[in-house]
Amino acid sequence: MSVGISASDLRHALPALGLREFWYPAGRSKEFGRRPVGRKLLGADIVFLREPGGVHALSDRCPHRGMPLSCGDRRFEGTITCPYHGWTFNMHGECVAALNEGPESPIPGKVRVRTYPVEERNGVVWVFMGDGPPKPLSDDVPEELLAGRSIIDLRVAVWKCGWLPAIENLVDSHDVIAHRTSAFYLFRKLPSWVKVGATETADGKGVDVRYEAMGPVHDIYPNIGRWPRRSWYRRLGMSSPNSGHQGLSQLRLPSLVRAAFPRMNYVRWTVPIDEKTVRVFLFASTNATGLAALRNRLSYWLWMSWSFMTQILNQDQRLFEGQDYFAPEQLSQTDVGIIKWRRVLAACAQREAQQRANG
Amino acid sequence: MSVGISASDLRHALPALGLREFWYPAGRSKEFGRRPVGRKLLGADIVFLREPGGVHALSDRCPHRGMPLSCGDRRFEGTITCPYHGWTFNMHGECVAALNEGPESPIPGKVRVRTYPVEERNGVVWVFMGDGPPKPLSDDVPEELLAGRSIIDLRVAVWKCGWLPAIENLVDSHDVIAHRTSAFYLFRKLPSWVKVGATETADGKGVDVRYEAMGPVHDIYPNIGRWPRRSWYRRLGMSSPNSGHQGLSQLRLPSLVRAAFPRMNYVRWTVPIDEKTVRVFLFASTNATGLAALRNRLSYWLWMSWSFMTQILNQDQRLFEGQDYFAPEQLSQTDVGIIKWRRVLAACAQREAQQRANG
Amino acid sequence: MSVGISASDLRHALPALGLREFWYPAGRSKEFGRRPVGRKLLGADIVFLREPGGVHALSDRCPHRGMPLSCGDRRFEGTITCPYHGWTFNMHGECVAALNEGPESPIPGKVRVRTYPVEERNGVVWVFMGDGPPKPLSDDVPEELLAGRSIIDLRVAVWKCGWLPAIENLVDSHDVIAHRTSAFYLFRKLPSWVKVGATETADGKGVDVRYEAMGPVHDIYPNIGRWPRRSWYRRLGMSSPNSGHQGLSQLRLPSLVRAAFPRMNYVRWTVPIDEKTVRVFLFASTNATGLAALRNRLSYWLWMSWSFMTQILNQDQRLFEGQDYFAPEQLSQTDVGIIKWRRVLAACAQREAQQRANG
Repeated sequence: MSVGISASDLRHALPALGLREFWYPAGRSKEFGRRPVGRKLLGADIVFLREPGGVHALSDRCPHRGMPLSCGDRRFEGTITCPYHGWTFNMHGECVAALNEGPESPIPGKVRVRTYPVEERNGVVWVFMGDGPPKPLSDDVPEELLAGRSIIDLRVAVWKCGWLPAIENLVDSHDVIAHRTSAFYLFRKLPSWVKVGATETADGKGVDVRYEAMGPVHDIYPNIGRWPRRSWYRRLGMSSPNSGHQGLSQLRLPSLVRAAFPRMNYVRWTVPIDEKTVRVFLFASTNATGLAALRNRLSYWLWMSWSFMTQILNQDQRLFEGQDYFAPEQLSQTDVGIIKWRRVLAACAQREAQQRANG
Repeated sequence: MSVGISASDLRHALPALGLREFWYPAGRSKEFGRRPVGRKLLGADIVFLREPGGVHALSDRCPHRGMPLSCGDRRFEGTITCPYHGWTFNMHGECVAALNEGPESPIPGKVRVRTYPVEERNGVVWVFMGDGPPKPLSDDVPEELLAGRSIIDLRVAVWKCGWLPAIENLVDSHDVIAHRTSAFYLFRKLPSWVKVGATETADGKGVDVRYEAMGPVHDIYPNIGRWPRRSWYRRLGMSSPNSGHQGLSQLRLPSLVRAAFPRMNYVRWTVPIDEKTVRVFLFASTNATGLAALRNRLSYWLWMSWSFMTQILNQDQRLFEGQDYFAPEQLSQTDVGIIKWRRVLAACAQREAQQRANG
Repeated sequence: MSVGISASDLRHALPALGLREFWYPAGRSKEFGRRPVGRKLLGADIVFLREPGGVHALSDRCPHRGMPLSCGDRRFEGTITCPYHGWTFNMHGECVAALNEGPESPIPGKVRVRTYPVEERNGVVWVFMGDGPPKPLSDDVPEELLAGRSIIDLRVAVWKCGWLPAIENLVDSHDVIAHRTSAFYLFRKLPSWVKVGATETADGKGVDVRYEAMGPVHDIYPNIGRWPRRSWYRRLGMSSPNSGHQGLSQLRLPSLVRAAFPRMNYVRWTVPIDEKTVRVFLFASTNATGLAALRNRLSYWLWMSWSFMTQILNQDQRLFEGQDYFAPEQLSQTDVGIIKWRRVLAACAQREAQQRANG
């Protein structure tokens, strides 16, 4: 059955555990202190802990006997000690002491644990998951999250679904259906339907998606007639200044969506935990300064924080946790953004696999 | 080890998800209204909903992106709309609108979702699970469930075991052991043992099972002596008119057991959910009319409803949920009904597999 | 990466479900009465029940239809009856009656269920899990558990980890790290580090492990300096008479560790339930008699029972349940006991596999 856009099914070529040679958000700065924190990203167990110089990330498996280092503690400045036999690692991942074996142990200097590059910016901790040398943070993280004091709010949630369904929907047309009943769209003249356009970005790392056309508030459909049928409340003509994004959103490698609203930039970053679970980072930010920034923050806390960041996202979570992502599917015109996104994603996954095979 | 009846082990030739070219009970009429209801039968997700013309059943996966249609709603007379992008299907399974794409969308008329034939009779909704054209309902459903006003009671339970163990036991000899302590048999002169006879039905769709012989109330066994040992209460000679079936029960394709009691017909229909779960439909019905029907209903509600439909069935559930069905087994004379049933079932499963392979 | 001791990785040659041709503890005597008790050991379901002559163990699957006999009951002296069809087995595993089939049934005398040799000693029930003829109990069970009235206490716990990690740690050096903060070691002059020595026992059935050297209470480590840093409380010089074992512990086939403390012998017996769960038997015993025995018992109940049997073991359980046993590992000098233990264990597993292949 092939209708509208035909596209070979790339779903099984997509990396269920995510792309590796990229920066990802690990958590809020305040989550990481001197007490080690274990967290799984992209299927890898990692321990994070803060030293005076900043946050560090090591593989959360002691190379001695496979014990999670995150169950250990910081017995010496700049180190973490395994709770089982006291093997102690510095923030470069080098074993500096095997407490159980004494000062003469041959272990220190010869055993190491993998480390992950970490950067902290704007109250967020970022980790580079690649095997290769880390790129600059700004290669992967959108500028609106790196500018000083730009982030208004960050929410973190764990959804019981893969990251692939969790990222695909902000660039399609489901808003006019799935979120029509939300407070966020309640007073908007929401179009009955949309036509989606998508273009691969110039750097090959994403897809720009826009509404190429929008239907009227009501339209007449063959077979079923007028839809939507009733919406007296929309006729009030009220409109929240923040409702409706500006017609452009962007899917970007490794796993994020950006959208610009009149008074807020929105980023949803879906970080795979394992193949069936995803940690979702929802960023609200603003480029404005001075009074405009103040107005945007106020607008966020009075309106977007609950109508969008809470209600819309709860609706999305319910949808994706119920979706049977790998069921037979029939993509159509409005899925053009998803089709192009999958091509970009699958191509990058193939490059990464090749790199790993080569060495 | 082969004792008594030797029979090649057919258990792995039996269809763990059930036979498909048959009618099954889906639920009570009152369960299905305008709100879609998702239900899994034979491993397939199905959404049921009621229109003025009756109840309809569609595959519970939107062909667009795999979303359960049962999470959607009825926005237009005679349709169901997917909650994700608003693809709308009529009760023939045809897509009549893709709300997100507008009136000009090429999707309607080209995409469809599978439908399942449904009939409603006597307060019960029946669904045909086959790929081929549906047979008349009366081919599969026993007459006592189709006659007007014949059903006295229907109970539905989900048991945590496969449907194969759940159906096999009403045709063997476990009553005289497993249910001896139940109120239902408390005042009966329950035989110490039975001899089972079984005959394939003339239409090849079932097995008739009867007690060919019954032991006395007590008997003397080699090695162990008299059994049962004490049963003063049975000597009272009291006997409920409804206790003890009339010596004949019938296993029938696809997955039901019928038994006639003096004042009640009993049907247990085991509907596979998945390989490890079964929905069990317990029907009590009567052929009588007029005062006799009234008496039978009274007798049911005063006696059988709790002594049989509650207590006996609870005992069965506990047994089957603990049984290791695929462990090595040693069938014997009293299992002749099960042996013949498995032959009938395996033969039909093979015919179905062949049909599917051919087309 | 190979440091210190290099050893081929034997972990996958170890029997995840345990060795079979050995005696294991099944439970406390008082757990087994006339009511059958089902219990899984080494992946096998077994039913235990007590007759006047002692405790018996049978396979917990009725050979008829796979029902757990432990759901049945004792209807006749010296037998157990299946709850489903009343097949009745004596303590030799022979079917003595098929109640559902009557005195003439051909089943009795022809069907049997596997039995396991059982011995009861000193308030503990032991079961032989092998296919071959049972050895004397004293071949496998340490003498301190068989002497009359020697056992002071037995605790049984189920840990959510394999038996392999659960047994390996009492013969390494983790005490000086993992248990340093426990009450048990609080007032001891615990060494900063140890050097471990290990010797295969003369009978080839175990490994003796001892501390060949011990570091001072504090030592100076390169890179990190003095460790442990603070321990004013240890300077008090107080020392519980029971703290610290006498420098020798022993790993023994099939799955136990023995250690001698000044006033207590300690045995930890790890009995596999399945590949991911282990039942741990913790025995405290004493060889002393008369007043010395009394003193040892008092010392146990006042001190060891909570500081060692509760706190230390809780620390161990937390560690092992978190350990990723099959992660890449890097053994070192202090693991010499584990390396030798794995060789003994793998060799025995190979002998057992060969025996099974031969017959």
